[in-house]
Amino acid sequence: MTGLADDVLAGRPRAVARAISLVENAGAGLRELIAELGTRQPYRAKVVGLTGSPGVGKSTSTGTLIEAARKRGEKVGVLAVDPSSPFTGGALLGDRVRMQEHATDSGVFIRSMATRGHLGGLAWAVPQAIRVLDAAGYDLILVETVGVGQAEVDVASLADSTIVLLAPGMGDGVQAAKAGILEIADVFVVNKADREGAQATIRELRNMVALSTASWRPPIVPTVAVRGEGVADVVAALDAHATYLAESGQGRKRRLARARDEIEVIVLAELRARIGGRVHGLERLEVMAARVLAGEVDPYTAADQVIASL
Amino acid sequence: MTGLADDVLAGRPRAVARAISLVENAGAGLRELIAELGTRQPYRAKVVGLTGSPGVGKSTSTGTLIEAARKRGEKVGVLAVDPSSPFTGGALLGDRVRMQEHATDSGVFIRSMATRGHLGGLAWAVPQAIRVLDAAGYDLILVETVGVGQAEVDVASLADSTIVLLAPGMGDGVQAAKAGILEIADVFVVNKADREGAQATIRELRNMVALSTASWRPPIVPTVAVRGEGVADVVAALDAHATYLAESGQGRKRRLARARDEIEVIVLAELRARIGGRVHGLERLEVMAARVLAGEVDPYTAADQVIASL
Repeated sequence: MTGLADDVLAGRPRAVARAISLVENAGAGLRELIAELGTRQPYRAKVVGLTGSPGVGKSTSTGTLIEAARKRGEKVGVLAVDPSSPFTGGALLGDRVRMQEHATDSGVFIRSMATRGHLGGLAWAVPQAIRVLDAAGYDLILVETVGVGQAEVDVASLADSTIVLLAPGMGDGVQAAKAGILEIADVFVVNKADREGAQATIRELRNMVALSTASWRPPIVPTVAVRGEGVADVVAALDAHATYLAESGQGRKRRLARARDEIEVIVLAELRARIGGRVHGLERLEVMAARVLAGEVDPYTAADQVIASL
Repeated sequence: MTGLADDVLAGRPRAVARAISLVENAGAGLRELIAELGTRQPYRAKVVGLTGSPGVGKSTSTGTLIEAARKRGEKVGVLAVDPSSPFTGGALLGDRVRMQEHATDSGVFIRSMATRGHLGGLAWAVPQAIRVLDAAGYDLILVETVGVGQAEVDVASLADSTIVLLAPGMGDGVQAAKAGILEIADVFVVNKADREGAQATIRELRNMVALSTASWRPPIVPTVAVRGEGVADVVAALDAHATYLAESGQGRKRRLARARDEIEVIVLAELRARIGGRVHGLERLEVMAARVLAGEVDPYTAADQVIASL
């Protein structure tokens, strides 16, 4: 496996792809790989999360951000995560015309990841995939997710900066989003800003942001991603946020939190595997489940006994 | 706390409400309450999950199912869960006109639950809330969720039978759903069946179901919930599925799996609390996170040390 770690560190795209597959499948040698990468070049890359409902233009926007970063000479890794698809085993990349332009650019690595449900899914796999891309020398890592559910919150906690993408006329866009986006957004992008309703969406966001008492007020950037309009403003907003992170100490705080989550999810997966393990040939949980079903013990007492047997 | 358990077992609505709040907040005395309820009357009620995208008519359909069950003399408990709203701390009940009709019926208990993110969220709270309603003598427990993401899969694993609600003209309805709904649906309901496109939706579902090799082929039931049309067919489909569950042994299997999940999530919450605990005045995970961030140890080694210190 040392070979693979060396190849990843040398930035070889095929090795990177293989390493991320290893993460996805929790394959043999993963632990050794991450261990080797983990102590060599940790947390160097800038991680940007990008989330929004289907149809707001996430892929196109990602494409424009790739372009902008490439112009600055940065290598870009993209993880497209579909948390709403726990079954298929393959996330939908959707319509990625703009992103396909970069398919032959060795400075760009694009990968879709599915959450398999095992081992904590997204929360388990994405930090390790980021670690792989980081070690491989990608300067900017874009993590793209759909919607604003728990998975997106998890992704936001992984990122240095999180962009929440909206578009006018998405119906429940801002309204449904209110519940969560203010908490996770570092930058709001209102895409399709040439469409009717864009000003209303921007106004609504402004009112929302105005109520925030946080030290960083997320800027609201209008874009027309298909024509590349406003992209420079998004990049500037990200740069401003990066400066804020560095100067306020929030950047280190976020990375500490990321490291904390990364460890915790590995700990929980390991403990989960142990819980599921066998004692005297019987699966611990199965045995207790039958007793709970029969009303012999309550679930808390059953849980105690499982923990005691670990 | 014995008082509360007794009142729940006597089916007093205010006690039921208080007990579910205790579950939501993981309040003091919860463990004792569940322990008392857990060994007295476990897994008696029929649990039906109901899931679908916003706008397909979930609340109205839930209302019609309540009505139908009340006509059979069954007591009905409803848990409306909004997994997409991890922040608000209060799930949106939405437009529940039909359900409000039952607000004064003592045989109906309606409650919205939010997933707080803590302790495993939905997966932690809902089984215990079901247990409370079960102990309180509700014959039918409807668990309503939005969308088809991981949370819905979790709910499906809690339910004896899961209804997936669709409506024509929801755009990506069936297509987006393909990824997951076949795996969780025991009954498909195509609501708003008087609208254009209903036949196409039904045809698409039929083609999907035809490919299934499972021993239970989910029936596809058209309804117009606002007019009560097709509700009897939904009830018949649920009854047929209940018979299948009983005769095939799948019913017991599902309840065993539910008990297993119920225990596991309590175990993991407890272990998580211990992981987050302090050793010599320092938070275990914080200390390791700083070392991982510095590249001194890799996350797996950090995880091992956390586990060893438990």
